[in-house]
Amino acid sequence: MGTAAARRQVLEGQPCARGMAFGRARVLRPLHFEISEKTIGQRRIPAEVKRFERALADAQAEMERVRATLSGSLAAELGEILDAHAMLLDDPTFIDAVRQRIRDERVAAHTALKRERDRLMGEFAAIDDPYLRSRSEDFDQVIGRVVNALYSDLREPIDPASLAGEIIVADQVAPADLAHWYEHGVLGIVTAGGSPLSHVAILTRSMQLPMLCGVADAQSRVRDGDVLMLDAEGGRLVVHPDADDQADFEQWRKDHARDQQRLNRLRKAPTRTRDGSEIALWVNAERPEDVSLAHAAGAVGVGLYRTEFLFLQGNTLPDEDEQYEAYAAIVRAMQGRPVTIRTLDVGADKADRTGLALANEANPALGLRGVRLSLTRPDVFTTQIRAILRAAAHGPVRVLVPMVTNAAEIKAVRKLFKPARKALENAGVEIGERVELGAMIEVPAAAITIDSILAEAEFVSIGTNDLAQYLLATDRNNDSVSQLYDPAHPALAFLIERVVTAAGAASRRVAVCGEMAGDPLHIERLLHLGVRELSMHPGALLQARRRIGEITLA
Amino acid sequence: MGTAAARRQVLEGQPCARGMAFGRARVLRPLHFEISEKTIGQRRIPAEVKRFERALADAQAEMERVRATLSGSLAAELGEILDAHAMLLDDPTFIDAVRQRIRDERVAAHTALKRERDRLMGEFAAIDDPYLRSRSEDFDQVIGRVVNALYSDLREPIDPASLAGEIIVADQVAPADLAHWYEHGVLGIVTAGGSPLSHVAILTRSMQLPMLCGVADAQSRVRDGDVLMLDAEGGRLVVHPDADDQADFEQWRKDHARDQQRLNRLRKAPTRTRDGSEIALWVNAERPEDVSLAHAAGAVGVGLYRTEFLFLQGNTLPDEDEQYEAYAAIVRAMQGRPVTIRTLDVGADKADRTGLALANEANPALGLRGVRLSLTRPDVFTTQIRAILRAAAHGPVRVLVPMVTNAAEIKAVRKLFKPARKALENAGVEIGERVELGAMIEVPAAAITIDSILAEAEFVSIGTNDLAQYLLATDRNNDSVSQLYDPAHPALAFLIERVVTAAGAASRRVAVCGEMAGDPLHIERLLHLGVRELSMHPGALLQARRRIGEITLA
Repeated sequence: MGTAAARRQVLEGQPCARGMAFGRARVLRPLHFEISEKTIGQRRIPAEVKRFERALADAQAEMERVRATLSGSLAAELGEILDAHAMLLDDPTFIDAVRQRIRDERVAAHTALKRERDRLMGEFAAIDDPYLRSRSEDFDQVIGRVVNALYSDLREPIDPASLAGEIIVADQVAPADLAHWYEHGVLGIVTAGGSPLSHVAILTRSMQLPMLCGVADAQSRVRDGDVLMLDAEGGRLVVHPDADDQADFEQWRKDHARDQQRLNRLRKAPTRTRDGSEIALWVNAERPEDVSLAHAAGAVGVGLYRTEFLFLQGNTLPDEDEQYEAYAAIVRAMQGRPVTIRTLDVGADKADRTGLALANEANPALGLRGVRLSLTRPDVFTTQIRAILRAAAHGPVRVLVPMVTNAAEIKAVRKLFKPARKALENAGVEIGERVELGAMIEVPAAAITIDSILAEAEFVSIGTNDLAQYLLATDRNNDSVSQLYDPAHPALAFLIERVVTAAGAASRRVAVCGEMAGDPLHIERLLHLGVRELSMHPGALLQARRRIGEITLA
Repeated sequence: MGTAAARRQVLEGQPCARGMAFGRARVLRPLHFEISEKTIGQRRIPAEVKRFERALADAQAEMERVRATLSGSLAAELGEILDAHAMLLDDPTFIDAVRQRIRDERVAAHTALKRERDRLMGEFAAIDDPYLRSRSEDFDQVIGRVVNALYSDLREPIDPASLAGEIIVADQVAPADLAHWYEHGVLGIVTAGGSPLSHVAILTRSMQLPMLCGVADAQSRVRDGDVLMLDAEGGRLVVHPDADDQADFEQWRKDHARDQQRLNRLRKAPTRTRDGSEIALWVNAERPEDVSLAHAAGAVGVGLYRTEFLFLQGNTLPDEDEQYEAYAAIVRAMQGRPVTIRTLDVGADKADRTGLALANEANPALGLRGVRLSLTRPDVFTTQIRAILRAAAHGPVRVLVPMVTNAAEIKAVRKLFKPARKALENAGVEIGERVELGAMIEVPAAAITIDSILAEAEFVSIGTNDLAQYLLATDRNNDSVSQLYDPAHPALAFLIERVVTAAGAASRRVAVCGEMAGDPLHIERLLHLGVRELSMHPGALLQARRRIGEITLA
């Protein structure tokens, strides 16, 4: 104990996702390729080629597996990254080059892989085009996966089960790895770089996985297997914690458990401010579990059901029945509470294997996406509309149109609904009698000219993530400008208030459905701006209800 | 004559840049690679390798030459495209592969080039990543240039002089080709695709080169050498015009010449609305010719001097003296009228060979650019600031900071000025006594929270091009969403009015310096929003002055 106390160190960091954790360190260092040079005899060639192919298949399977475990909003967030990596594993030029090396250079699979990797990296380094050059990181990560798969038959593989109870200490964290670790019971994340505004930080908050970032020398001060106490409430990482630290942690755990119990008592409570204003809490939901959670937490309905996952999971577009089944399942599960289905919101930034989005946009976030893309493909859009109308036979459905810039776009969508409805009626197919059509407000121009939008839309939903991105001209996924991505910026407040006031005057419902809506830090601000409907991750609902109960509006 | 009348056809199109032209058609069809397969003997190999290398050098020289003829704002617009292409011509993998084919496959240079091109295109086609796949077009254009250079020693080259007096008929037009044609006396442009809002259309307007777009079957209805009358006033292309058409054209030419004379009489006139409001007209200027034009047209000063060209033309950053010389030249040439120098505005979207900008941004327009980038490199920024302070010894200078999101950024810039000024003073270097610091308003958040910006900035300039781009979440260089890029959108008017009103209340000067400012179509709207200062291409100034004289504000 005396030794432990003497070795005890406290490192400071920025809390990204609150909570505490107590466990052993798993220190991750950048991928190295310290692979032995091993020549082989002629007779060994077929076996090594096979070994390489098996490793390739294993790496692919591993990625498919990670892909399959993702669901809900996490699938949308991470799927595209995994898709891009899977593409590289399929690249015939790469695969043939490694095979060739095994044969021509008579080396083991891992040596051939290393040589091909070095050649590729050299080639990338010589590329002047900065974007292409940057893709080398993707290649490196993917080749790393194949190397891991190769080594798995040479030495003991890393047992994913061994991750349970560990705290990851890394320089940076990739969103795809985060999902993998979360699934295997990792207790917390510590990074040397990063920021609380990063995409990974947002993900850890929605996973409720404690995370500390900006712990500058974490990788040099912490060794694999060191006992750590991660205190993401107080912004500290304690290495070799002592008995007092352990007592602190136990105390937090007890408090946390008690807090959870208290929260659970709010399941059936109404959502009201301290001074009695009713607030409607909706959930963002995609998967059946989200619906159960929504019921359990007493949500008024689904405020945002994203449909992208249906379009991004295969090489072909989902047909009407496939879409209908998915939509109908969620409508039925909500048992009469309204479900807000957002029409397809893809663009060139999603790894879209259906070929729907444009290939070559310099700035996909400012390109042909959302309703802009849907209106260029009335055939595809009509299929989705028909599926939605049919699902609406099972319960109340609202349709939310993403990326609206002008009222004309909503008019154009409404125009597609009419013939779709007529055709289904004529064919005797059961459809919903009434489907409200709403606009997602995420383009600043739409927020400013909200009156014209409200003349066409029956409800509106403010997407604060994208709205802030355009308003601040700051890509929310770009870490190099993350300090400018500020959801508390007064310009965003100005636009939210403008939309809410106009919607009130027009007697239209308005909800906020970006990440701010579920964040206790932002809820009070939103309510003071006049917001009375929030849509959030189901896991955030009870805390939001409690936070609202503490707020006085008058 | 009877035959000509019988063959006479009128095709309709959308006017992009006004004016008329009478000349012969030069019909451009997409690049074909109908190149002969030609094997060679062992002894011919060195000569063919040399032939390839010479063609490569010729293609590079051709691009350098086009690059060098560009100046002023055109250089900024087109330089980045040419830079990207030049990079590909330097790619050692590509060059070696062609050399290897000549040697191993014993084929002529053009055959080797064709085979390598086919292989590359096949590889690109197999790429799943849509962005990478799209780069194949760049490769194709660049290889096309080398093929042209190769063939130039086999057959008669296209004489650039032959372009004089011709009207280009094409599917689409690349900005780089446009500059080349303009320089060689092309009279007008007709495209099957395109839109008046496209980047190319904007360029033709600033070149005052008549252009008609959306002439759907132009390429099939017009043959090389056909006589055309391009009527971009009336939106018509007349194929095989008759005597009446020719008379119409002669009449237009006379009217146009008379109109130019009338315009020239306005050179020394004041700029006033019909009811007597004084309007200040500034010019956007980079090159010495712009300054002469500015004087001739009676501009109040340079409202926008872009500094990017100094940073984008070489592989190294320009040093302090180099920048000082450039800035001082323009300040001296303006003879006491103020020059507004905009600090460096590059980002990942410019082909920046100095390595200043980030390499791997998914949405460069929403990334680390303008002042965001400059503040991450105080060393580079201070060099620019020192050069500006020294240039200010020769006349009044204002500094305009691009891409401002928050007042804190202006504060941070001001903080860099202090030590720079002190160091120069201590070293006994002559500097300007007073340099006003202003903010470019192009981020919507900055326009909304303009009061906080005005607390720090001594003047502001509204960059309507980028402001509209972010406000409408629409990339202004992306043709697939060009119908949404609307400078007349009421949301833009709302922000302009907000900025102008706040600047007036704070007694700060405010100018508009986007493309709208010089466009007679938009000037009235801008004046009604309260704008009293406009900065524009010097060639647009006299027309703007005349337009203003017709406007009644009261």
